[in-house]
Amino acid sequence: MSDIAFIGLGHMGLPMARNLLKAGYRLRVHDLVRSAVDELAAEGATSATDAREAVAGTAVVITMLPASRHVEGLLLGEDGLLQAIAPGSLVLECSTIAPESARKVHAEARARGIDLLDAPVSGGTAGAAAGTLTFMVGGEAAALERARPIFEAMGKNIFHAGPDGAGQVAKVCNNQVLAVQMIATAESMALGVANGLDPAVLAEIMRQSSGGNWVLERYNPWPGVMPNAPASREYEGGFMAELMAKDLGLAQETAQNSLSSTPMGALALQLYRLLLKQGQGRKDFSVVQKLFVE
Amino acid sequence: MSDIAFIGLGHMGLPMARNLLKAGYRLRVHDLVRSAVDELAAEGATSATDAREAVAGTAVVITMLPASRHVEGLLLGEDGLLQAIAPGSLVLECSTIAPESARKVHAEARARGIDLLDAPVSGGTAGAAAGTLTFMVGGEAAALERARPIFEAMGKNIFHAGPDGAGQVAKVCNNQVLAVQMIATAESMALGVANGLDPAVLAEIMRQSSGGNWVLERYNPWPGVMPNAPASREYEGGFMAELMAKDLGLAQETAQNSLSSTPMGALALQLYRLLLKQGQGRKDFSVVQKLFVE
Amino acid sequence: MSDIAFIGLGHMGLPMARNLLKAGYRLRVHDLVRSAVDELAAEGATSATDAREAVAGTAVVITMLPASRHVEGLLLGEDGLLQAIAPGSLVLECSTIAPESARKVHAEARARGIDLLDAPVSGGTAGAAAGTLTFMVGGEAAALERARPIFEAMGKNIFHAGPDGAGQVAKVCNNQVLAVQMIATAESMALGVANGLDPAVLAEIMRQSSGGNWVLERYNPWPGVMPNAPASREYEGGFMAELMAKDLGLAQETAQNSLSSTPMGALALQLYRLLLKQGQGRKDFSVVQKLFVE
Amino acid sequence: MSDIAFIGLGHMGLPMARNLLKAGYRLRVHDLVRSAVDELAAEGATSATDAREAVAGTAVVITMLPASRHVEGLLLGEDGLLQAIAPGSLVLECSTIAPESARKVHAEARARGIDLLDAPVSGGTAGAAAGTLTFMVGGEAAALERARPIFEAMGKNIFHAGPDGAGQVAKVCNNQVLAVQMIATAESMALGVANGLDPAVLAEIMRQSSGGNWVLERYNPWPGVMPNAPASREYEGGFMAELMAKDLGLAQETAQNSLSSTPMGALALQLYRLLLKQGQGRKDFSVVQKLFVE
Repeated sequence: MSDIAFIGLGHMGLPMARNLLKAGYRLRVHDLVRSAVDELAAEGATSATDAREAVAGTAVVITMLPASRHVEGLLLGEDGLLQAIAPGSLVLECSTIAPESARKVHAEARARGIDLLDAPVSGGTAGAAAGTLTFMVGGEAAALERARPIFEAMGKNIFHAGPDGAGQVAKVCNNQVLAVQMIATAESMALGVANGLDPAVLAEIMRQSSGGNWVLERYNPWPGVMPNAPASREYEGGFMAELMAKDLGLAQETAQNSLSSTPMGALALQLYRLLLKQGQGRKDFSVVQKLFVE
Repeated sequence: MSDIAFIGLGHMGLPMARNLLKAGYRLRVHDLVRSAVDELAAEGATSATDAREAVAGTAVVITMLPASRHVEGLLLGEDGLLQAIAPGSLVLECSTIAPESARKVHAEARARGIDLLDAPVSGGTAGAAAGTLTFMVGGEAAALERARPIFEAMGKNIFHAGPDGAGQVAKVCNNQVLAVQMIATAESMALGVANGLDPAVLAEIMRQSSGGNWVLERYNPWPGVMPNAPASREYEGGFMAELMAKDLGLAQETAQNSLSSTPMGALALQLYRLLLKQGQGRKDFSVVQKLFVE
Repeated sequence: MSDIAFIGLGHMGLPMARNLLKAGYRLRVHDLVRSAVDELAAEGATSATDAREAVAGTAVVITMLPASRHVEGLLLGEDGLLQAIAPGSLVLECSTIAPESARKVHAEARARGIDLLDAPVSGGTAGAAAGTLTFMVGGEAAALERARPIFEAMGKNIFHAGPDGAGQVAKVCNNQVLAVQMIATAESMALGVANGLDPAVLAEIMRQSSGGNWVLERYNPWPGVMPNAPASREYEGGFMAELMAKDLGLAQETAQNSLSSTPMGALALQLYRLLLKQGQGRKDFSVVQKLFVE
Repeated sequence: MSDIAFIGLGHMGLPMARNLLKAGYRLRVHDLVRSAVDELAAEGATSATDAREAVAGTAVVITMLPASRHVEGLLLGEDGLLQAIAPGSLVLECSTIAPESARKVHAEARARGIDLLDAPVSGGTAGAAAGTLTFMVGGEAAALERARPIFEAMGKNIFHAGPDGAGQVAKVCNNQVLAVQMIATAESMALGVANGLDPAVLAEIMRQSSGGNWVLERYNPWPGVMPNAPASREYEGGFMAELMAKDLGLAQETAQNSLSSTPMGALALQLYRLLLKQGQGRKDFSVVQKLFVE
């Protein structure tokens, strides 16, 4: 197996890279935060002082960065990293960014003869640590087949969403539904409890009925209903409200491109921004429950 | 087994009554629509010319009516049917009505020594015909145990939601979540398709991911994604948009009582009312998809 | 001039009654709160120990009560006050209640030969004290002409909105627009300031442009923009958020009757309920500004 | 008076340029649409075959283009028009664009020693023709004083909103309030009429009360209430719904930059997009009334 350059070792990137090491891949890693690089170096990775050094001589590059501007800034342009990556290489761009940004990156990679995939993930830091992430992949089917073993070392479900940028589109659609059903569940839990129902009973009835959804199945926002959900540990851990606000913002940016009407997703974004104003942005996104209880 | 009086033989009541006949119960049936009564009489039920005649001498009464005013009008007051039902009888009030109306009916029944349960159903006409309805039951646990065999002849999941009116509260909470996740799914399907995704691929990715919900599992609103869903037969059959608007109205009425904030449910109601204005009220509620495509 | 019975001496009723006294009317007053009655008695009114005593022998009755249930409870039924009011009398029902409640009261008054008007007010406690209220009146035009001098002793604008209940419908429509434009103004002020504008400059530009509205003209929600607005005294005084939530609830109840879609009004209600949950219900309704700033 | 180069002769630019001609200014004009150029040439302007030719030798440049990408495309970069404009010149950039785009243009102009103002307008094509536009101006106060006579030849209200980009911010705030109060007025008119009120009576009551706003004053969306409003000529003319959707999109883009919550503005955008899907985008924006009536 060839070396993999892994750039971006944040809350998600670090555990993803660690799973690649465990699977036997040799890694060359880089991040602006030195401690993350050192941590992985102690586990067997080769540390690189900058991104160019990381990709030198590797045939596979993985990037996991915060937002569109970081990805465009790193990869594109005359000084961009794509210029330093050998034609024929495989680049797995795993950041969650605007579909339009992803398409720009695809276009420049293709012009250089590089196989690039946009491959945002879902599953959160827990999924990253457990190696059970979902990858939603946009780009050529052949490139996905080439990348599959690498994805499988980090995740469980690997979906081919469609052509360039389709991974990002699938992710914003999925997370828009997730945010809306989180809020709908939270407001309905509060409505039921305010009208005399036991939260655990109501949660179980809806879970087994036509109101059933992933939130009710795994992630109930009412404290105490699910002992392992963030709601039961004061909304610590999990997927931060400010990251959900970021993803809902990407959904609105995508909707702007197609002039699509998404009333529920738009309202969800506004409600998450109210939470951010209230200083709850770094809590798990199920903290939206607090809007609806005194 | 004793006779059961069954009042209200509409789209839901008729197939429910039929399942009781099949299970061996003797029925005395009444409806203002004569043809429904005759239909069941031909299958072995005893027809009654009015509701009082239906309940005379029976120990169990089932009512399945359109709305709060019909239930209050039939059961309550000096001339109400509760006065004609013997103390010690069991009344299963299966209509979907306001929790407050249900509590009035409970109070008067209790004063008469009658065991009454509010027991709205979910599952639609298909579930009624197949005998797979869900019953969400409010009232005494002992009364529910007494009623259980009868519910099981008509349904599959029997939930004890809590005290008087709790069945109605659980139902409005569940249907509020259902309506919101239907709209969220529809707008997100439209967003994805407008940005290049294949509808079936997007539906499958979300179904298996954190956006997963009952709508994606059983009832996708995009035509052709699920051959058996109403969306694939021009939104005919299923659960009518105007009935979803009714249930969302009950949710808002319940929220008014507790001054609960339910932004997603409130918006869902407004969007369904737009559909009603456009003449789509008698289509399946997944017809909301049409708002989001040209 | 004949005696007027005035029932309901709360924050609005008390200053309204006082203006009638100042205009030379003789008043017979009643309220469940004894201190309000005593206060007016000290200013020349005759105190009555109950509502029946207040209306005995008067030809004009004014009621100003908190909500539909109080009005229906006082006026309707076999023991209701309408039975104690002489045929040919004039009743000015000034409470803000559901149009449907108003129509019930009209019907019973008409059956008794009483001229009744539904006449909710706008202008708040300041308008009540200054005698500058707006009356929105439903009922017979002839009855309104008969009542006009009395209204003019308490208010400035007297509108004939239409037949029975039309005063209430006009009021909920007006207050729905008011609530929405308050929130729109507040969120837009916050948006502008967050993007570098001076609040006073932005307020003035919008006031003079197509965004101009009553809120920008008289009642800017940003602290300090208008020295006399509640926003500049920590949102004390004015029109309480919980009363705006009540009026928005009446608008939704009215919309339920006609199956009207009112997405903006519905969202406004949900946002006011969030404020109530946050303990801001007794602040002026411009306190909604606080949702949008840190 | 020096020559003015005027670039962009669309629905707004053409009548604006014409008013400058009438005021005695000498114009050099350019547009991609030849007929507009010819029309003005016939009235005394000098036609230019491209933008560079238009600005050559002039000390004042006005641009009026459809969107951010056109403005950035025309003015910025090595081949951009700012490179062809003499230091010391005055540029009035009157397009409605993203504040962020405006700031980029300001920065490049400043680096070149050019006095640039962002100066979006409101007032529509009618205001452009009548010379009664409102200009909301961002940039240096000194530059605004230099430009004032030119603005006054085209408009009536000239506001200094603040520093670079502030004109654009003020405009998106204003138009957000406008869109929301249009929809709130439309849904409340429909609510009132559905509950028995005469539309003209209701409109007049709200206009004079706390629901009063610019829409009720000048632009009522109910057909027939105001003979001169677009609603009374089948929503033809006026300010197109698709342009309001564009401005609401800019408001959301601005809100994204500051993570501001604007629930009313966000909902207004989604409702306008529904209208666009229904083929109403080129009607006046008061056509939103149609969503709420059968």
